[in-house]
Amino acid sequence: MSDRTIEALDEAECLRLISPGGIGRIAYQSRFGTAVLPVNYRMHEGTILFRTVEESPLDEDLRTGIAGAEYQVAFEIDDIDTVSRQGWSVLIQGPAHHVKPGAERDAALNAGVEPWPAGERELFVRIVPARITGRRILAAI
Amino acid sequence: MSDRTIEALDEAECLRLISPGGIGRIAYQSRFGTAVLPVNYRMHEGTILFRTVEESPLDEDLRTGIAGAEYQVAFEIDDIDTVSRQGWSVLIQGPAHHVKPGAERDAALNAGVEPWPAGERELFVRIVPARITGRRILAAI
Repeated sequence: MSDRTIEALDEAECLRLISPGGIGRIAYQSRFGTAVLPVNYRMHEGTILFRTVEESPLDEDLRTGIAGAEYQVAFEIDDIDTVSRQGWSVLIQGPAHHVKPGAERDAALNAGVEPWPAGERELFVRIVPARITGRRILAAI
Repeated sequence: MSDRTIEALDEAECLRLISPGGIGRIAYQSRFGTAVLPVNYRMHEGTILFRTVEESPLDEDLRTGIAGAEYQVAFEIDDIDTVSRQGWSVLIQGPAHHVKPGAERDAALNAGVEPWPAGERELFVRIVPARITGRRILAAI
């Protein structure tokens, strides 16, 4: 594995890589310490948008956290080929908040975010990137 | 998407799913708040084991954190099919520590953990699971 290197990605490249949406992992402070869960996200006006199942553990933790004003979370997206061992990862850090009913929620609905599991899912969560970093793992020529 | 449900997985099933090793994401407290990065892990005697590049940002953050006694991290592993929208995720929460030189390090080397990028990588990190939870996303019959 001595033929591989890590290369930092600039913010524009990070945003390009994550623009299609898909699976990302949100890390947040839960009742049991730091937790990480996969969610199905979309990009919307430069922010990360996903839905949660109301009254799920994720919802309850986020609800408690978000109630405390600035609730900082991390959101990671990657695409890694386990055979060639090449790929990239992007890390978004910033505050999360619930999308409010009205114009913001209507816009979120139009962004086409789909949750996966069944159940009530009225809640949209938005993460506003404060810091965007990324890295690519390359095979040397 | 109203035909899908989330099912909780018991600890034995979680351990079975993550036993092959591969890509996992570690979440930890960095200088810039919660951070998440992908690493190449192996299971070793019921613990998560991976290597870091010495003096990398991850190493420096973990080094600072680990120095402060019990350093709690989260480790997430998942396997999600974006076409069928089915899959599973497992979350490990517990303390991380550097593997000490000597018998513990020799055993770690024999566990076959391989880092990806080039560089000095003398450091093994071990996460001892204190809490193991998992969920499966199912399509209804």
